[in-house]
Amino acid sequence: MNAEEFRRRGKEMVDFVADYMENLEQRPVFPDVEPGYLRSLIPTEAPLEPENYDEIMKDVERVIMPGITHWHSPYFYAYFPAASSYPAMLADMLSGAIGCIGFSWGTASEATLMSLLAARCKIVRRVQSINPEMSEPEIFIKLVAYTSEQSHSSVERAGLIGGVMMKKIPTDSTYAVTGDTLKKIVEKDKEAGLIPFYFCATLGTTASCAFDHISELGPICNEQNIWMHVDAAYAGSAFICPEFRPLLNGIEFADSFNLNPHKWLLVNFDCSAMWVKKRQDMIGAFKVEPLYLRHENQESGRFISPELGYHWQIPLGRRFRSLKMWFVFRMYGLQGLQAHIRKQVGLAKEFESLVRADKRFEICADVIMGLVCFRLKGSNELNQNLLKRITKRREIHLVPCHLTGRFVLRFAICSRTTESHHIREAWRHITQLTFELLQESIQ
Amino acid sequence: MNAEEFRRRGKEMVDFVADYMENLEQRPVFPDVEPGYLRSLIPTEAPLEPENYDEIMKDVERVIMPGITHWHSPYFYAYFPAASSYPAMLADMLSGAIGCIGFSWGTASEATLMSLLAARCKIVRRVQSINPEMSEPEIFIKLVAYTSEQSHSSVERAGLIGGVMMKKIPTDSTYAVTGDTLKKIVEKDKEAGLIPFYFCATLGTTASCAFDHISELGPICNEQNIWMHVDAAYAGSAFICPEFRPLLNGIEFADSFNLNPHKWLLVNFDCSAMWVKKRQDMIGAFKVEPLYLRHENQESGRFISPELGYHWQIPLGRRFRSLKMWFVFRMYGLQGLQAHIRKQVGLAKEFESLVRADKRFEICADVIMGLVCFRLKGSNELNQNLLKRITKRREIHLVPCHLTGRFVLRFAICSRTTESHHIREAWRHITQLTFELLQESIQ
Repeated sequence: MNAEEFRRRGKEMVDFVADYMENLEQRPVFPDVEPGYLRSLIPTEAPLEPENYDEIMKDVERVIMPGITHWHSPYFYAYFPAASSYPAMLADMLSGAIGCIGFSWGTASEATLMSLLAARCKIVRRVQSINPEMSEPEIFIKLVAYTSEQSHSSVERAGLIGGVMMKKIPTDSTYAVTGDTLKKIVEKDKEAGLIPFYFCATLGTTASCAFDHISELGPICNEQNIWMHVDAAYAGSAFICPEFRPLLNGIEFADSFNLNPHKWLLVNFDCSAMWVKKRQDMIGAFKVEPLYLRHENQESGRFISPELGYHWQIPLGRRFRSLKMWFVFRMYGLQGLQAHIRKQVGLAKEFESLVRADKRFEICADVIMGLVCFRLKGSNELNQNLLKRITKRREIHLVPCHLTGRFVLRFAICSRTTESHHIREAWRHITQLTFELLQESIQ
Repeated sequence: MNAEEFRRRGKEMVDFVADYMENLEQRPVFPDVEPGYLRSLIPTEAPLEPENYDEIMKDVERVIMPGITHWHSPYFYAYFPAASSYPAMLADMLSGAIGCIGFSWGTASEATLMSLLAARCKIVRRVQSINPEMSEPEIFIKLVAYTSEQSHSSVERAGLIGGVMMKKIPTDSTYAVTGDTLKKIVEKDKEAGLIPFYFCATLGTTASCAFDHISELGPICNEQNIWMHVDAAYAGSAFICPEFRPLLNGIEFADSFNLNPHKWLLVNFDCSAMWVKKRQDMIGAFKVEPLYLRHENQESGRFISPELGYHWQIPLGRRFRSLKMWFVFRMYGLQGLQAHIRKQVGLAKEFESLVRADKRFEICADVIMGLVCFRLKGSNELNQNLLKRITKRREIHLVPCHLTGRFVLRFAICSRTTESHHIREAWRHITQLTFELLQESIQ
């Protein structure tokens, strides 16, 4: 869908929304469907090729609306109000377009925390089944969780929030955690009387897009009853392309997995997808059920939503995020989404080759996805100064990272509309600023 | 703004969004403003009377755009991508209109958890400053938090997640916690060697919209170094009306406060506003800062956003939610928002008087805001059967609650478009079903 078609469809959608609001009274406020009704109405897989927009809008009435509780119907007197107004909707359209992210990038953080808390609950039960006299805090004090020294800051924070020790595991020359390293640390900790219970692996680290060796790490975790959470917030989207699947080898050992479609799968922020091997582990950790949240079908097993919802996350409420995934999957098709991923990886490779052709620069980590880590050969200060100039000039926007003590520039292919000429312009701009910087340092 | 105007403005907004996306390359990717630039561009208070929509859209360019980092510019190579596509935006428009809430109602839960974790961090520091030899888990084991037996289930859950004991305080005949009750429990717990550290008060409970007596509770908490969090998720919006302010007496003793504009302030889900007395208490609890999240202005104190952002919540990222608050405040003005609250309270009073006029029914709690708790005089089973019929008929939608062991029906004024005739229809429907129910139970 291009801008032209969006103008047309967007205006149709405005009318659809206005019609919906004006005629809400005519719709039954509460759905007359059984849990599971959706299953027979939708295909089991995302379409391979893009679908027709009109088909999707037809399905909104055929598939979606029959299952909706209309929170804004004047016949809705349940819970408390969910506010709604036209100005708020207009602002939300704009907010969705600007699509800026409040100073960071994701709700993978929440998935990490949830998995850590579920793992904490599970280990406490296991220890208490063997030593019933041990209290929760007596167990907490011995718990130890692990993650890569390269993992996202939210993992460390999950440890802080969960009140457990979080140890950072050193990485190899590709910035990945290997099985041997983890194994030695776990053994040493067990000898010291600690209880290893959680490991957060990363597929595609933030700093350099490194991939922990989960095919080595997984069996160790399984053997030692350590919950393995796999954070693939960014790179996870790429696994829709078969050529990237080998990076997923070992995923069968994972207890939980997360990717953020809002990063690389064309779904606007926010949208984070989490998978858990045994959902009972997750529900058990957080189940608190007052009367006003109970309903008839929840024990039937056909009804997955409450578990997906308030037992699996910190906030009770959540937006209707699956709707935008559904639109995107159907309008692009698997092929369209694969093409998007492949194009962006190609652009990263193109940028990499530009950097490699300039002997003043070095590439600092393997370019596997859409991220290129590079720096000027020389001091950290020199690279800090280069980045300062780039930021000050405001033509392009980059952020840095540290890799084994070195200050490194991260060039991530982000925008859906980035083309080859943007990459070349960006590189010209960087080399121009480099030239100025080096000239001045000579003077 | 009515549906007609929304159709016009919505279509303009679609064009604005398409223009924005098509011309994104022309905008500098990174803002050229200093932190605090906004302060001189906007008034210090929300407008009293509604403003003109064109003025707001002019201000989008004048006020908002200069401060935006354009995450979807092809010159943005920072962090990782934030996905965006036209189909996702269309779906989000629809999602905003449907505005359903994933099986519950809010992110006040998150504010509660954050305040509990901050309080936990603060008390650990305090105890360790006196007894430096005590470890964190040794302190955790003695911590005790409190909340009303009527408070929202998310408070209990916050205790579970935070790994601390959460005691439920009995309420008086109005379902509110009083100072005397809390005081006695705190004293007893201290004698038993426990460390009271947190109390979550509620202004407007979920079950019956009861108000804890914070003017009595606050001084006790302050004196005992107990963090007092005030959860006013629903009723908080009503404090824009002076006549409801007396219910806020004692707020000066609170350490943190939360309301959900997405409940009762015409701002679509989700939007939860939290206030903390000493922001250092909140930041201290969660600060983890990797290089890629640091920036120049963060230590200047002029820059509140990082604290409002990732140190104050579980997810790192957040949507640009203030935009919709800004649109709504300006398009309604304080007077318009007050009128909305007052109208809904009036409708609740109207429903109350209909219930009171029918001797078969009883009102179960004071009607203060937009919630009416009522039941048929008789057994819980009778009332459960009545609610089952209401739910099955799907004309209106209600949820129940328990008040001192009694099964009670909650009638909450929710929709912005609810009018007096809807209330009367709803009551006719309820009395009709009651008639059928009672007829059948006679036969």
